[in-house]
Amino acid sequence: MERVTVAAIFADQEKLGGQTVTVCGWARTIRDMKTFGFIELNDGSCFKNLQVVMDANVLDNYKEIAGQNVGAALIVRGQVVLTPEAKQPLEVKAASIQVEGVSAPDYPLQKKRHSVEFLRTIQHLRPRTNLFSAAFRVRSATAHAIHCFFQDRGFVYVHTPIITASDCEGAGEMFQVTTLDLENVPRNEDGTVDYTQDFFGKRANLTVSGQLNCENFAMAFGNVYTFGPTFRAENSNTQRHAAEFWMIEPEMAFADLNDYMDNAEAMIKYVIRYVMSHCPDEIDFFNSFVDKGLKERLEHVANSEFGRVSYTEAVEILKKVNDQFDFKVEWGTDLQTEHERYLTEQVFKRPVFVTDYPKEIKAFYMRQNDDGKTVAAADCLVPGIGELIGGSQREERLELLEGRIRELGMDPKDYWWYCDLRRYGSCRHAGYGMGFERMVMYLTGINNIRDVELHPRTVGNAEF
Amino acid sequence: MERVTVAAIFADQEKLGGQTVTVCGWARTIRDMKTFGFIELNDGSCFKNLQVVMDANVLDNYKEIAGQNVGAALIVRGQVVLTPEAKQPLEVKAASIQVEGVSAPDYPLQKKRHSVEFLRTIQHLRPRTNLFSAAFRVRSATAHAIHCFFQDRGFVYVHTPIITASDCEGAGEMFQVTTLDLENVPRNEDGTVDYTQDFFGKRANLTVSGQLNCENFAMAFGNVYTFGPTFRAENSNTQRHAAEFWMIEPEMAFADLNDYMDNAEAMIKYVIRYVMSHCPDEIDFFNSFVDKGLKERLEHVANSEFGRVSYTEAVEILKKVNDQFDFKVEWGTDLQTEHERYLTEQVFKRPVFVTDYPKEIKAFYMRQNDDGKTVAAADCLVPGIGELIGGSQREERLELLEGRIRELGMDPKDYWWYCDLRRYGSCRHAGYGMGFERMVMYLTGINNIRDVELHPRTVGNAEF
Repeated sequence: MERVTVAAIFADQEKLGGQTVTVCGWARTIRDMKTFGFIELNDGSCFKNLQVVMDANVLDNYKEIAGQNVGAALIVRGQVVLTPEAKQPLEVKAASIQVEGVSAPDYPLQKKRHSVEFLRTIQHLRPRTNLFSAAFRVRSATAHAIHCFFQDRGFVYVHTPIITASDCEGAGEMFQVTTLDLENVPRNEDGTVDYTQDFFGKRANLTVSGQLNCENFAMAFGNVYTFGPTFRAENSNTQRHAAEFWMIEPEMAFADLNDYMDNAEAMIKYVIRYVMSHCPDEIDFFNSFVDKGLKERLEHVANSEFGRVSYTEAVEILKKVNDQFDFKVEWGTDLQTEHERYLTEQVFKRPVFVTDYPKEIKAFYMRQNDDGKTVAAADCLVPGIGELIGGSQREERLELLEGRIRELGMDPKDYWWYCDLRRYGSCRHAGYGMGFERMVMYLTGINNIRDVELHPRTVGNAEF
Repeated sequence: MERVTVAAIFADQEKLGGQTVTVCGWARTIRDMKTFGFIELNDGSCFKNLQVVMDANVLDNYKEIAGQNVGAALIVRGQVVLTPEAKQPLEVKAASIQVEGVSAPDYPLQKKRHSVEFLRTIQHLRPRTNLFSAAFRVRSATAHAIHCFFQDRGFVYVHTPIITASDCEGAGEMFQVTTLDLENVPRNEDGTVDYTQDFFGKRANLTVSGQLNCENFAMAFGNVYTFGPTFRAENSNTQRHAAEFWMIEPEMAFADLNDYMDNAEAMIKYVIRYVMSHCPDEIDFFNSFVDKGLKERLEHVANSEFGRVSYTEAVEILKKVNDQFDFKVEWGTDLQTEHERYLTEQVFKRPVFVTDYPKEIKAFYMRQNDDGKTVAAADCLVPGIGELIGGSQREERLELLEGRIRELGMDPKDYWWYCDLRRYGSCRHAGYGMGFERMVMYLTGINNIRDVELHPRTVGNAEF
């Protein structure tokens, strides 16, 4: 079928004005004024609706069309008419309208505001609302912006494995993956589970991070990134955590902590600018209906030089206002969201990297600083959210890495391939992780991760 | 550290000729001729190595450098010298070389050909070989080409869920995802597993396809695609199957079977051209060392109009040469790889879509044709591989869909949301699925899926 999208009509209105076109979409509203009427048609190609004017003198099936329910799928043929004086810049005067698919009268999305809680029960239909149309379009644009940023800079996209049999990253919160029959688990003679009968011949889990694998590839390609789903089986029910979410994890060889921070700052600014220029209608919508300060905040971040402050200095700053916090800060404690937001919103009034945390509160693979107390880690805090990115320079010295692994009661043998990287042409390197949904929340002002994931998975929820 | 990549030196050789630069990378070979020597340096930014010339009269640590093992990480500072008469277009005359990280003498990648089987045991190091450097770089470029193709055409990228509690797509071959303790599975009073205690409150699996979810979003955005990992717990050990692989699944509203075929043909051609233009050195390498006919085949496919033939016609063609096949063809049998390759390689000599298969051998959601026997499905067969893509127009008529679900002994209630799409503004729509690794194999000539996945997961294998 020869047809044009609503996006193309708005984009090429000069060229299409006066032309006869065919448009296919779904009726968002239908207003019947007896001899004429209006349809707001949305085809998903852009955020905007197309106004279709129908005239009972022109359409021999006017009554059929005017009587359709919201949500009906329609094929409209008509002339594009530019309307520079009206609220919308153009409309289509229908010469014919065909019903492609009716919408049953119990269609749950009537023209009124529905609560996000209700809409979560109809996740298959909620992308037809303005809020979710905008949210998932921004999500798509954000993903592509991230790919473009890294690909343009020569980073190789690596697909680190989803199923993993190493529990390098700290088990406990992992989902187990199995083909064993849970009704009848095979046992060894001593009564333990016989994993030799499982698909992989051993216990396997869903990944919580691709970082360690990423390092394998950074030591060959220099600059790499992974962008894929990760999983946490945390039994927590918060607005910011889901069991399944996507992560971006770049890793850079011959790079130190400053190189990571430079790259992360450039990436955030690039993504903000990309989304603001590719999704202006969506950002306007969020700014009007979800978060009044959104646009200003995004523009401010895109144009700020990010601050940098050491953990030790940050603690000094925070201790002075400890009476404002639920959790009091001392050197050695991990920073809570309340502290992070205070730093970025009240003190720096822009994004800030906090660097060089105590090694006890950070992961074993982070590079030890010469002070013997801290590691070359840095978290990026942004106004309105707190931590958006966590990263570090990695420990490239074999003895120090193995020492830290042992200190934490683990066995370097379990990390043989990770340690190998330090045996054969080791080099300084750094990387970071950004939760993709957190970035989308930041770009939209949506404050619940359930509303930026298409079909969110949380405790007790794996519908659709 | 101010440095340039090897890729940048080759790309900007006019500008950089005569300039002094710093390059960081790993020694692929070191040749010591006593008073001078050569290093082939690779930094992963491109397939090519950089020739570094070292002179004992210039470098006071000449002996240290010349004595390094293959794989050592080096920081080279020196002048870029254009060498138009030599085999390589340029070299760097080292003014200084620092060892960033030595390579232990037992480095497994010595300068000789290693078998791919051996290299699979050192997956953390194999990207440092020519074969895997090229393979994973093509993999990255292919992924980006796919994103660009769909994003440029206004398709919305949707992340369909990885964990799923619906077994819509046909269970049996699925991995189960659980947080239950397998050593001590909780039981109901009747002895069955008590899934209310599992993380999602019910049995959950890893997805085998995002298609049904994709349709939810196509009915809102018109054109969408998913690109993510999928899983099959098939206990088969072939060169073409892995337990974890990535899939691209586009879905298009107001589209029929021809629209899907047009889109898929354009996509394949776009991806081939993108990879050939972005990875010319890699494709040359594969053409020389992996598959002599590769380049010619890719160019041919990029410039052919794909054939289209109905299953019924194809069966007539194949029956005439049934004596050539291990499996004899009759109307109603599924086509095997031998038949598919015969059609595309011997009969059409170009890619071909086989359309309108018997409904019994295709999935329940495919649109029934008016003949009552076939469905509007089409598989895309390509020379050298066989099936690359499978797709169909979807059944958009509620009664026919529910009828087919019941015919197959399933319950439409289990598909309530999928059926809902046919209640509220249903429209003709079509989509397809392409195995990403199969496409990478096609582009590289590599014939084992284990060698195009970074860390492949197969029966008994989940290392790294």
